[in-house]
Amino acid sequence: MAAVLSPIDPLRAHRIAAVTGGRVVQRDDTLAVEEPLEIRLRVGAGVNSGERTVTVTMRTPGADAELALGLLVAERVIDGPRDVAGYRHCGRHGNVLKVQLAAGVEPRLSQLARNFASTASCGLCGKATLDAVMGVSGGARAPAATPRVAPGVLHRLPRALREAQPLFDSTGGLHAVAAFSESGERLALREDIGRHNAFDKLVGAMLGAGAADLSQCIVALSGRAGFELLQKAAVVRVPIVVAVGAPSSLAVELAERWGITLVGFLRESSFNVYTHPQRLGLGVASLAVPA
Amino acid sequence: MAAVLSPIDPLRAHRIAAVTGGRVVQRDDTLAVEEPLEIRLRVGAGVNSGERTVTVTMRTPGADAELALGLLVAERVIDGPRDVAGYRHCGRHGNVLKVQLAAGVEPRLSQLARNFASTASCGLCGKATLDAVMGVSGGARAPAATPRVAPGVLHRLPRALREAQPLFDSTGGLHAVAAFSESGERLALREDIGRHNAFDKLVGAMLGAGAADLSQCIVALSGRAGFELLQKAAVVRVPIVVAVGAPSSLAVELAERWGITLVGFLRESSFNVYTHPQRLGLGVASLAVPA
Repeated sequence: MAAVLSPIDPLRAHRIAAVTGGRVVQRDDTLAVEEPLEIRLRVGAGVNSGERTVTVTMRTPGADAELALGLLVAERVIDGPRDVAGYRHCGRHGNVLKVQLAAGVEPRLSQLARNFASTASCGLCGKATLDAVMGVSGGARAPAATPRVAPGVLHRLPRALREAQPLFDSTGGLHAVAAFSESGERLALREDIGRHNAFDKLVGAMLGAGAADLSQCIVALSGRAGFELLQKAAVVRVPIVVAVGAPSSLAVELAERWGITLVGFLRESSFNVYTHPQRLGLGVASLAVPA
Repeated sequence: MAAVLSPIDPLRAHRIAAVTGGRVVQRDDTLAVEEPLEIRLRVGAGVNSGERTVTVTMRTPGADAELALGLLVAERVIDGPRDVAGYRHCGRHGNVLKVQLAAGVEPRLSQLARNFASTASCGLCGKATLDAVMGVSGGARAPAATPRVAPGVLHRLPRALREAQPLFDSTGGLHAVAAFSESGERLALREDIGRHNAFDKLVGAMLGAGAADLSQCIVALSGRAGFELLQKAAVVRVPIVVAVGAPSSLAVELAERWGITLVGFLRESSFNVYTHPQRLGLGVASLAVPA
């Protein structure tokens, strides 16, 4: 199986502004790549062949065939590697993997039909095709140029986030997503075992309290910043997203395209700016893309 | 909206064996609750009403109405709180939330139909009904009584896990899942931006290398242990799952039912045992469930 590697590199370079105390340094950083993989089952050969998309998953490229085999076994569609005759990448950027089943193997597709229809829960998992995944930017609206935020405000956010997580304090096992004003006042915070749920709860809380959108807010994430959270942020016009963890390559790409200021590795004395630094008063108007 | 709370407590007590060095103490711990929420849209009234399940998401109970509102807005099915006439919990354990739309509101269901059909990527998100979510145990097979593992082996795993994460070392932003033998030898490790993908890759790697299942392995997770990872572990008969992070209530419940030894908060000098301690040589045969 080692021969069937993804054609996409799992790492990508990106120019950032690294802020430590009052010092700002532009340098290249390394991002974990997040790209969709569409897994298609192929049964039979020639004119008698048939194909069916099993899933689209946002994954780090590399070991795509292992990923497909493990997923198909874990979902009980097939029994093991003997059921597979071969794997082949195709499609734009090699983001489609065709799994050719061995002659005579009947995949348990009823398993899929029963378990995986018509869902939307995690915002990126439940997409049937690559186009559906990449087409979500249709819902994105350009955030306002404001707010403008001083770096000192960002440095205070990790503590302000930690101070208001009652469920995490009890369990050590929950994500939090919070909205702050441009002066760093905490407007609302929600917790959940799923970070996409915590984000949805926050949006529901803000809109339920009368906000038209989140265009004047900083949204802070207790963990990493993936594609699905940036997608949700874009729909409700969040201008600044700050994460305690790392952003993915696709999160950075979409923040860049949608005009969102994206900050990662937020600490009390340091943070990295990945896109649109102009809102942060750092004297950095834009980040050059490495050649 | 504050009036529409989930009827389920977001925290749950569970008896654990807390191991620090050579000392074992049984005590009550607090788990973050993970339970499915089915969100149904309800249009019209009386004989002219119609209902449709939008999604099932695994969430921490509390703020369910906010979660539904935020999800429906982020997925652009509705525009905001004015489109909703009310929320009502129903179903077993209150795990169904009906969202009654205001008169004249047309939800953009085509949005859902296009984006969210027929997927399986995250193992728990893509389930259309509560029964589908809870029915996955049909694929679980009892793991073997073996392996038996000495506590000292578990203490060495965090370092063994960290030593083999090349992508995390570059980015600080990836999950890892690894298989170890009962003597603590690392058999395989895979990384991904999604932990369910990392688990699938590991299963694919082990089966692709000739293993019939993972019934003689300890599987180590770099993050938290959620329901979907335990589900995958059960299908390939993993007897011992150890996580650096916290387990969810549903992960503990299913590990209990399926005979899997579940360890959380794994450190070099301490760990917590949540279920089936008999494989770990701690002198603890079983964990009493608190009354």
